[in-house]
Amino acid sequence: MNNRRVILVSRPTGVAQAENFAIEAAPVEPLADGAVLVRNEVLSVEPAMRGWIADKGNYSAPVAIGSVMRALAVGAIVESRHPDWRAGDVVTGWFGWQEWAAVEPTAILRRVTEADLPRSLALGVLGINGVTALLGLTEIGAPKPGETVLVSTAAGAVGSAVGQIAKILGCRTVGIAGGPAKVAQCLEKFGYDAAIDYRAAGLGEAIEAACPRGVDVYFDNTSGAISDAVYPRLATGARVVICGTASIGSWDPWPSGPRIERHLLVKRARAQGFIVFDWRDRWDEAVARLADWVRAGRLSYQEDILDGIEACPDALAGLYRGDNFGKRLIRLAAGEP
Amino acid sequence: MNNRRVILVSRPTGVAQAENFAIEAAPVEPLADGAVLVRNEVLSVEPAMRGWIADKGNYSAPVAIGSVMRALAVGAIVESRHPDWRAGDVVTGWFGWQEWAAVEPTAILRRVTEADLPRSLALGVLGINGVTALLGLTEIGAPKPGETVLVSTAAGAVGSAVGQIAKILGCRTVGIAGGPAKVAQCLEKFGYDAAIDYRAAGLGEAIEAACPRGVDVYFDNTSGAISDAVYPRLATGARVVICGTASIGSWDPWPSGPRIERHLLVKRARAQGFIVFDWRDRWDEAVARLADWVRAGRLSYQEDILDGIEACPDALAGLYRGDNFGKRLIRLAAGEP
Repeated sequence: MNNRRVILVSRPTGVAQAENFAIEAAPVEPLADGAVLVRNEVLSVEPAMRGWIADKGNYSAPVAIGSVMRALAVGAIVESRHPDWRAGDVVTGWFGWQEWAAVEPTAILRRVTEADLPRSLALGVLGINGVTALLGLTEIGAPKPGETVLVSTAAGAVGSAVGQIAKILGCRTVGIAGGPAKVAQCLEKFGYDAAIDYRAAGLGEAIEAACPRGVDVYFDNTSGAISDAVYPRLATGARVVICGTASIGSWDPWPSGPRIERHLLVKRARAQGFIVFDWRDRWDEAVARLADWVRAGRLSYQEDILDGIEACPDALAGLYRGDNFGKRLIRLAAGEP
Repeated sequence: MNNRRVILVSRPTGVAQAENFAIEAAPVEPLADGAVLVRNEVLSVEPAMRGWIADKGNYSAPVAIGSVMRALAVGAIVESRHPDWRAGDVVTGWFGWQEWAAVEPTAILRRVTEADLPRSLALGVLGINGVTALLGLTEIGAPKPGETVLVSTAAGAVGSAVGQIAKILGCRTVGIAGGPAKVAQCLEKFGYDAAIDYRAAGLGEAIEAACPRGVDVYFDNTSGAISDAVYPRLATGARVVICGTASIGSWDPWPSGPRIERHLLVKRARAQGFIVFDWRDRWDEAVARLADWVRAGRLSYQEDILDGIEACPDALAGLYRGDNFGKRLIRLAAGEP
C-alpha cells in the first residue's frame, strides 16, 4: 500500500510557495501498537499554515524541513491497534498533507458524529474555522445585541462564520473583503448589514459610513492597512479579537504601523489574541452549537475544493493570493483502501 | 478678594510650555446659588494634562483657549450656597490652576476624610495616581502571586504605587525608569526586585535578564521605545495595562512603531486602556485601601512640591523633561481668606 505525502523541503521567509514543497511516495509501514491508520478523505488548507512553517514569531515549533506538512484532515480509521478506536470511526485531527496517516490517538481532535452533514465540514464551519469564529467572537469579543461588529476577511472561512454568528446574536454586522465579488457574497450569502471592499479608495471613510456609532467589536484576521483604518474608529469600550495577521507578508523584518496604544487608551478598548487550540475543552460544545445552526439554515458556509494531493503545494500560496472563495480544502480521490 | 489664575493662551502641538500659559488676576465674584467657594491649597500637575490640552486623540473636550487650566486640586470650602456642603469641608476635585474656585458640587471628586494624613496625598497616592495604580493593576492587569509585573515610569507617581501594590499582592516587580537616581529610588524606596535604566544601552536584554520567564503584567505609562522592547518579551497570557503614553511627544503626525498585533496573538495576550475617571464608583473604596497601606508604612510616596502659582506655567513641561522626583504638586501660599 503506497502513501503519497507532501514534504516541506525548504523554509520560505514569507508565504510558502509550491517550490517549498515536494510530493513523495512511500509504502505505508505496519501499524505500531497503540496507533491507528487513518485514510484521509479531505485535507485542510489554513492561513495559519504560514505561521506553522515560520521559524519565528509563532506559537508552536515550526514544521521541520523534510517532514510531512502539518495539517488538519478528516477521514476514516481503517485499522486500529488502540482499544478506544475502531475501524470505521470517522475522525478529524492532525493527520498531515498525505493520503494515509498512521498516528497516535493524541493526534485526533475529535470523532465526527454529525452523520447527516458532509464530513468536510469538520475542517471548516464545524472545525477550526467555526470554533474560532464562535469562541473568539463570544469569549473575547463579547458582543452585546445592537452593537456593531466589524470583520476583516469577512467572506473567508472564519470571517463568514463570525459575521453570521454576530447577526444571530443580534448585532449589526459589517464585513471587509477584497473585491466586488466577495463584497457581494458578504451581503447576499452571509447576511452582513454592510460590506466594504478594502481595495477601493477611502477605506476609513467607508468604515465611518458603515459604523456611524463606531466599531464595538473588531474581529481582526488581517492586521496591516485594514486594522490601521479600524483602530481610529473604535467605539468607547471596544473589543478587538486578534485572530490572524493575513495581510502581513513577512514578520522578518518586523513591520511597523501606526501605534495603537493611544487608541486603546482613549477608547478604553481591549485587544486580545485568540488561538483556538487553547480551547480544546470547549470544542465539542462549540461544534454542537454550530451544527444546530447549520441544520437550521442559519449558518451558511462556502467551500473551495481542490482535487488530489497534487493540489497541495500551491494551495497555501493561492490562499494568500486570494484565489479562494471560502474554506479551501483538498479532496483526495477514493483510492484502493 | 483677588483670584490669580493660570489661563491657557495658546494651544501647543506637543507638550504645553510656559509660554502657552499666562497668569491673570481677577476679583472673586459673588457666589451663585448652589455653588461653593474653595480656597485651593495644593494644585496638581499630571502627565495627562498634555492630553487635556490637545485638540485630538483624547477622551475629553480640550481645555478652551482663554479659560483656566483644568486641574485637580485640594482645598477647604470657605463659603457654601449648597445644602450638602459646609464651610470647613476639605475637598478635592476639578478646581483648576487658580487660587480660588467657585464651582458647582459636581466638580468635587470627594470629601477628604483622612484627617491624620497630609491633604496633598488626596492628589497623589490617595488620589488620581494611587487609584489609577490600584484599579488599573488589579482590574486590568489582574496579577497573580508569583507573576512578574513590569512597570514603566516606575519611580513616578503612578508607577511607584503600581510597583509597591504588586509587591503587596505577592508579585515579582521590575521597574523601568530614566537615569541612575530614579533606578536607585526604585530599588531602595519602592522595593522593586529589579530596576532598569531605559537610557542605558541594551533595554531588551535587560528586560530579558530581569524577567527570565517573560512579563506577565506590563503596566505601561510610556508607549514608545520602552513598549517596543517589552512586547516581544510578554509571557503567554500576558496582560498590558495601557495607562499613559508619556514617551510620545506628539500625536500629530501620528507616530509609528513595530506592530504589536502578532505579539498579542502568539502570546494570547491582552492590551487594554485604563482611564481612572471611568471608575468613580470604586474611588472611595480604593482610597480607603490605599490609606491603610500608607498608614501601615507599606506604601511609600514621593512628592515634588513647587511653591506658588507662578510655578504653574512651566510645571507640565518640566514633568515631560523628567525634572521631577515623584508626584509634582504646587503649594499655594497661605493668603488672606
